[in-house]
Amino acid sequence: MINQLDKIFKPRSIAVIGASTRENTVGSSLFKNLIDCGFKGGLYPVNAKNKEVLGIPAYENIAAVPGPVDLAVIIVPAKFVPGVVEECGKAGVGGLLIISAGFQEAGEDGKAMVKQVLATSRKYGMRIVGPNCLGIINPKLGMNATFANKMALPGNIAFISQSGALCSSILDWAADQNVGFSHFVSIGSMIDIGFAELIDYFGTNQETACILIYMESLTNARQFMSAARAFARSKPIIILKSGKSSDGTKAAMSHTGTLAGNDAAFEAAFKRAGCVRVERISQLFNCAQALSMQPRPAGNRLAIVTNAGGPGVLATDYLTTRGGQLAELSPETIAKLSEALPAHWSHGNPVDVLGDASPVEYRKAIEACLADPNVDGVLTILTTQTVTDATGTAEALVAIGAKTRKPLIASWMGERDVWQAREILENGKVPNYRYPESGADVFLQMWQYTRNLQLLYETPPEAPHRFAPKRDAAWHIIRNALAEGRHYLLENEAKALLGCYGLPVGNVQVATSAKEAGKFAEEAGLSGLC
Amino acid sequence: MINQLDKIFKPRSIAVIGASTRENTVGSSLFKNLIDCGFKGGLYPVNAKNKEVLGIPAYENIAAVPGPVDLAVIIVPAKFVPGVVEECGKAGVGGLLIISAGFQEAGEDGKAMVKQVLATSRKYGMRIVGPNCLGIINPKLGMNATFANKMALPGNIAFISQSGALCSSILDWAADQNVGFSHFVSIGSMIDIGFAELIDYFGTNQETACILIYMESLTNARQFMSAARAFARSKPIIILKSGKSSDGTKAAMSHTGTLAGNDAAFEAAFKRAGCVRVERISQLFNCAQALSMQPRPAGNRLAIVTNAGGPGVLATDYLTTRGGQLAELSPETIAKLSEALPAHWSHGNPVDVLGDASPVEYRKAIEACLADPNVDGVLTILTTQTVTDATGTAEALVAIGAKTRKPLIASWMGERDVWQAREILENGKVPNYRYPESGADVFLQMWQYTRNLQLLYETPPEAPHRFAPKRDAAWHIIRNALAEGRHYLLENEAKALLGCYGLPVGNVQVATSAKEAGKFAEEAGLSGLC
Repeated sequence: MINQLDKIFKPRSIAVIGASTRENTVGSSLFKNLIDCGFKGGLYPVNAKNKEVLGIPAYENIAAVPGPVDLAVIIVPAKFVPGVVEECGKAGVGGLLIISAGFQEAGEDGKAMVKQVLATSRKYGMRIVGPNCLGIINPKLGMNATFANKMALPGNIAFISQSGALCSSILDWAADQNVGFSHFVSIGSMIDIGFAELIDYFGTNQETACILIYMESLTNARQFMSAARAFARSKPIIILKSGKSSDGTKAAMSHTGTLAGNDAAFEAAFKRAGCVRVERISQLFNCAQALSMQPRPAGNRLAIVTNAGGPGVLATDYLTTRGGQLAELSPETIAKLSEALPAHWSHGNPVDVLGDASPVEYRKAIEACLADPNVDGVLTILTTQTVTDATGTAEALVAIGAKTRKPLIASWMGERDVWQAREILENGKVPNYRYPESGADVFLQMWQYTRNLQLLYETPPEAPHRFAPKRDAAWHIIRNALAEGRHYLLENEAKALLGCYGLPVGNVQVATSAKEAGKFAEEAGLSGLC
Repeated sequence: MINQLDKIFKPRSIAVIGASTRENTVGSSLFKNLIDCGFKGGLYPVNAKNKEVLGIPAYENIAAVPGPVDLAVIIVPAKFVPGVVEECGKAGVGGLLIISAGFQEAGEDGKAMVKQVLATSRKYGMRIVGPNCLGIINPKLGMNATFANKMALPGNIAFISQSGALCSSILDWAADQNVGFSHFVSIGSMIDIGFAELIDYFGTNQETACILIYMESLTNARQFMSAARAFARSKPIIILKSGKSSDGTKAAMSHTGTLAGNDAAFEAAFKRAGCVRVERISQLFNCAQALSMQPRPAGNRLAIVTNAGGPGVLATDYLTTRGGQLAELSPETIAKLSEALPAHWSHGNPVDVLGDASPVEYRKAIEACLADPNVDGVLTILTTQTVTDATGTAEALVAIGAKTRKPLIASWMGERDVWQAREILENGKVPNYRYPESGADVFLQMWQYTRNLQLLYETPPEAPHRFAPKRDAAWHIIRNALAEGRHYLLENEAKALLGCYGLPVGNVQVATSAKEAGKFAEEAGLSGLC
């Protein structure tokens, strides 16, 4: 199975069916990207009308392509796709990436085409990414099989997006912020390959350290849970799921044509699967960066070391109103800090090292906090004041980071004054943010990961494989209530219904007389208690 | 009174007492800023040891300064400040800016010094900003009386900060993002001039369109309320108040030496005073920018026009989980949109104009939404896809903005691909944000302003001037309960206590018999009801 995905994500040769000579079309942009970004394998444009595309000899159809084709990218109009898939199968293509839109969205006809495409691809053993997607990037291979106008940098994040449009913006941001990817996948309508399989695939992929998902809907929840649970321990899986609100759900439905589902169920599922859920686009990469740079915190108790009182308080507000705790420093730590810092220091957490703190004072304060067993992580805040050494303090923090197993987060506040220092922090693998609230936010996300992993260890490893609910009995209970004109269940009925699905409930029997009640109690061995 | 503040904020001449020749000291940085930033008025360094400071003739003391001095900036150590203030008074100085620290924080001695300084300054009719602050900037005058390493650009925001350290970072950000200020005030310990007077002053200042406040504590709440209520109608007052959480309050107390107070009381007060409260540093300027560029929304119903479904759903989630509403488009609007857009458009709000939307389609969609009476504002989202015209769409949006009275907000997602478009939006006074969630957030803040102004109109204009609670009676009620060993009040006692403070309560009497109850009822004219 996974071997088949290699044909799609690590292809040795690619045919582009619908590669076009007309500028600014998907067929031209995508083929141009494959050339420009330096894909090293075989590259075959398939175009019925032209002898070549962008200088490369074109073939009339896939059957005419001379070499073996691992991946066929399909860009032709939807109605031609089923035929093309059949041709690909006959030609021995390894896997398919269908860019074309016009399936799920196109009503009954579209659905019929999907069925046909799936049947054909299964017949020939080809797996499918798409349709209706932006494409796939594997930066290390120089493979940009998308029609975006940007390439992704190589890195260790696998990004899976259910929105193609979001992909373009993400690529633009990522390029600007030097965020790199192992794989970048626009997953489209997922008629075949879905989130679960990609988690399996990237979960075992050596080049991937972290899996990021933008999700709008989920069709096979159990498969997803099982895949996520298997890999969440070794690689953070960070999910931005849209449709959290009921209006959002409606909007998502109109957008994707699928039911986004009840958000509370997603929330619980992500938690139990050890995933980290974020709420905003900006958190997705903040969180990925932090988890790839720093160890997870063992708990939610943060120490804040700052040279400015106000920002320390703002970070505290953010932290403690969202489930974090301000670490209570031990008397030993307070004593150490009193020795290292000027008399006016805050004598508590946040540790205000005062406006003229040197890198040495910062270092001593941070080390004292890290040594405290009540501290699970340290957020260091710096504002540039008269004598502040922004770069020196950044270097001190990086040096400390190399020696500790607790996470360090930084907020060097400002712009030009701290650019150089931010670069030092970035290179030294200390995640850093413009605003102290963002630093606190990232600590909370990291803690969420720890906590969800703990939940993962606590719960049974799998949902029971052989789950056989008593569907008939359940149906009877509901039908009886309806027959009596009721839209609610009586207590004994409700409990019986839960029992049909294997949920443990107290034993309930309805007695119509004291004598009968006594009898039931005796049967249940409760006589001594009556 | 306000005339006296002019001496401080619009001085014609400044003496710097403690101007220093030693580099990297506050006395040197501040004086250098006054020279380098181009202050046009008289400038007199006062320094007992040197004949000149940075090339300007120095005076041994304030008495020796030849010309009249509007503002004296005091940078000498705390213990010398009372004497210097006396000298300033004698020399006829107009107002004081005390930079020096070491008063409130320094225990009893410090407090005694504060008393002395206040008494002296009152004797001579001088008002004081500080002590323990970064200083003041008036960009239009080229006046930078701070020891920060940055100057503020001219603009129409008055910024008042209780944290000096935060000021440096804010100046750095603002410079980077072209945010300009009418005044920039580090307010310090506020032994004399506080928030209320500054709101009064900037409220009537022609160059100020918007007042931004970073607050840690508030000492004279009634004065503040009265000032804010008076000006909130004409100028937005946006407040970032730290110490929201109980831990944050504790931290703030240790930092400022003042009690930050119960946050719920602040929340209610800000609301009733028509202020906008934000929670994060990043929101402070986002909100100020939006309110200075766009009209306020009349309600909380937002229309979202987007060329990408996912981001539209994310904005919806953010909006509707935080008190906003997705506008329900009228059938007429839907019909107009169906005419203007391709068949597959979302047929609802968010209005998905689809991936290949041109500026014309965007324009028609936005105009249709704006014309709908169910819509209070429009958030336009753009992701760059194959044929997207980011700049053309920005120009279309700016043109629409010039003709509508409903607020427009934009989120052009990405970086380099949309930089040029963002500049067009910025120059065209359409606030724009990297992430759609930030756009929704700003709409919510703008709506908060509208709603709080509505509350302001609803409530009586002032707290009663002559409020005379029956303190003695109240005290008796509590004392009696304590005497009976109770730590709670009976219903009738509780109501009587509320009555002592003028709160309307139902008439309660305790009857010990049916007859007595009947008598009470009769007395109250309730006989017919019994």
